[in-house]
Amino acid sequence: MAKTSILNIGDELLIGQVVNTNASEMAKMLNKAGFDVFKTTICADNAESIRTNLRNMMSEYDIVLITGGLGPTKDDITKKILAEEFDSVLIENAEVLAHVEQFFKNRQLPFTSTNREQALVPSKCRVIFNEVGTAPGMCFEKDGKIIISMPGVPFEMRFMMPKVIEILKQNFETDTIEHRTLLFSGIGESFLSDMLEEYEANLPSNISLAYLPKGGTVRLRLSVRGKNANAVIALADEYSTKLKSLTEKYFMGFDSDNLAETLGKQLIEHKASVATAESCTGGNIAHLITLVPGSSSYYKGSIVSYANEVKENVLHVRKEDIQNYGAVSEEVVRQMAKGAREVLNTDYAIATSGIAGPDGGNDKKPVGTVWIAVADKQNCIAEKFLFKTTRENFIERTSNQALLMCLQLLSQNSCE
Amino acid sequence: MAKTSILNIGDELLIGQVVNTNASEMAKMLNKAGFDVFKTTICADNAESIRTNLRNMMSEYDIVLITGGLGPTKDDITKKILAEEFDSVLIENAEVLAHVEQFFKNRQLPFTSTNREQALVPSKCRVIFNEVGTAPGMCFEKDGKIIISMPGVPFEMRFMMPKVIEILKQNFETDTIEHRTLLFSGIGESFLSDMLEEYEANLPSNISLAYLPKGGTVRLRLSVRGKNANAVIALADEYSTKLKSLTEKYFMGFDSDNLAETLGKQLIEHKASVATAESCTGGNIAHLITLVPGSSSYYKGSIVSYANEVKENVLHVRKEDIQNYGAVSEEVVRQMAKGAREVLNTDYAIATSGIAGPDGGNDKKPVGTVWIAVADKQNCIAEKFLFKTTRENFIERTSNQALLMCLQLLSQNSCE
Repeated sequence: MAKTSILNIGDELLIGQVVNTNASEMAKMLNKAGFDVFKTTICADNAESIRTNLRNMMSEYDIVLITGGLGPTKDDITKKILAEEFDSVLIENAEVLAHVEQFFKNRQLPFTSTNREQALVPSKCRVIFNEVGTAPGMCFEKDGKIIISMPGVPFEMRFMMPKVIEILKQNFETDTIEHRTLLFSGIGESFLSDMLEEYEANLPSNISLAYLPKGGTVRLRLSVRGKNANAVIALADEYSTKLKSLTEKYFMGFDSDNLAETLGKQLIEHKASVATAESCTGGNIAHLITLVPGSSSYYKGSIVSYANEVKENVLHVRKEDIQNYGAVSEEVVRQMAKGAREVLNTDYAIATSGIAGPDGGNDKKPVGTVWIAVADKQNCIAEKFLFKTTRENFIERTSNQALLMCLQLLSQNSCE
Repeated sequence: MAKTSILNIGDELLIGQVVNTNASEMAKMLNKAGFDVFKTTICADNAESIRTNLRNMMSEYDIVLITGGLGPTKDDITKKILAEEFDSVLIENAEVLAHVEQFFKNRQLPFTSTNREQALVPSKCRVIFNEVGTAPGMCFEKDGKIIISMPGVPFEMRFMMPKVIEILKQNFETDTIEHRTLLFSGIGESFLSDMLEEYEANLPSNISLAYLPKGGTVRLRLSVRGKNANAVIALADEYSTKLKSLTEKYFMGFDSDNLAETLGKQLIEHKASVATAESCTGGNIAHLITLVPGSSSYYKGSIVSYANEVKENVLHVRKEDIQNYGAVSEEVVRQMAKGAREVLNTDYAIATSGIAGPDGGNDKKPVGTVWIAVADKQNCIAEKFLFKTTRENFIERTSNQALLMCLQLLSQNSCE
């Protein structure tokens, strides 16, 4: 089986200015196509660093996929290093040149000598055409290994990856890999692990289980691999069903690592719609829900009521309750949920009101305090939490908890 | 100067299920404290892989920071490997044990033997106490190098990092590093680069410049380093002012890599408030704005009008215009912006309506079509874009473009 590695080049990644989403996106696509990623590395935009890491990866792995350092500016040196490493000179590629010229013409921009350099490629590479940008992809073969360089701009990489995987498939045999992710709430990682001790001990060697705790939930990912796709899928079905039956009490649903997607599936099953009223989460729950393709069939919208006057004027929360209990209170969050259901005319509604910080807390309600409510026609359930963490993580955890509470209300309703 | 490396351990990172935000967060904190990260690597949860990568990093770098694989379950083996590598046995730490017991007691959960194992630490390590979780941090010293292992759970890592940096500062001298980021729009990376050829050629060796194109904008990051903090700051001021004067026409503002933060600063300067009306961006603009601490002083809220009835009922968009022109049209997006300004009672408003895909497009309005409007009391500017990309990236690019248009309207108003 071909061992795959990823090398992401870029100073902006090493100072933490940009999160390296390329590695995870590439890994996901590769994994789906049956290629296992053994290692991903970020290195700096300098010759020595690129050269050393490339050589190390080539000595250990069959495939090295590289992103970054292909832009037109001085800090982009990947192409030069690759030409040196693969005994090439840089030559102008006519097809790439025509594309780059057209690219600038379409944008009504002048075509400079710096732009023209984008059409230079190492003589020993096979060009992978880049329809959506100016830097071409480059594929090298050496000693039975494949080395491919792509642009670091995420959406250019995304467009190029299917072609890259095609090339890899022509050169290497792959296994089928099938994942099943099960979502649990109300139980910790260690208790689940104790509960599944015997199950885990008896798993065949081509099946693995991983624990992924996140914001009050635990996910279990079951991965099955093998040559025969049908057999792999059958095994995944069998072992995930068994897993579910062992953990029924805490099982929230099969899930694609995405609570909003799981909620969406359940809403479609229930033929139900949902709306949100967000104060402290500031639109993030709406964002998570609408990231899911097709969410317009069950999601109507959100009132992000950051200011109290919006809570009053749009969600019809009573002014005196905000004055008496404060915006972060059970009374207000319940009225927000009910208001959202009515104003946006949905079956379910989710509401949040809390103190994300870093300022705004006091002794009685410290930073991290949050009330969450979920409502349907009959019920309105409100709960208070304290998430002492960063502002960003507070928003993330509150959003996940709110989606989870809505999921729980839905499963209650399906039990009745 | 101490060379720093980061090793993130976890199968979930290598199959792309989880984006490795730890590396960038750690790098950001390290960089601010004057530690340069030379390399970050993700490796699998298996003994050989952890051992090989750890040894390689220890041979090349002065500092190795490790996250992951410290949980209570079978797939967590980092602690065992570290004990082996540093000639240690695992011994129970009384202080950690007391903390872990209390941790479970607070949550009213039973304390199992699996949980108890969290209190085992390698005999030769110095424990870094973890107040917010059960897995302790561990610090090892060998041959003048520092190796520190932390939990992979992001918020636990975040709580532990200040202590880690304290330890590093006790062991290594650091430079001061100062960054200035300048935001540009209306010019491409290559044109900026041509414009700055002479400026770049004459930069002192302790100053570097990086180009960061993203969604229609380009950022230039100027980094200055040195021993003397005051001198470094003075140099950063001098060279960023010079840079600004050379590029005045396209300069949008100094920025902390964050358009929403830049917009927030400008709104505070203008003593102005803003609201959003989001269809295709589904709350993401609200989310970006409210991620910024203190945004409640200028942001009032959003109407996420995913359903047309919400556009009509809450934002007062004319039903006949939605019928005649469609929800994705100049007429509708203008009415959304005006509606948001009125309903949410703000100085400025931003509105989006588009087709995020993957479904919902047609010949006249393909997937990726989007109308964006920004309005103040006098003006309402609407523009159409076509972002042919993934759903997620479409949302990101539309959000950035909308924030940028609001920033442009604000700077127009300050020129008048």
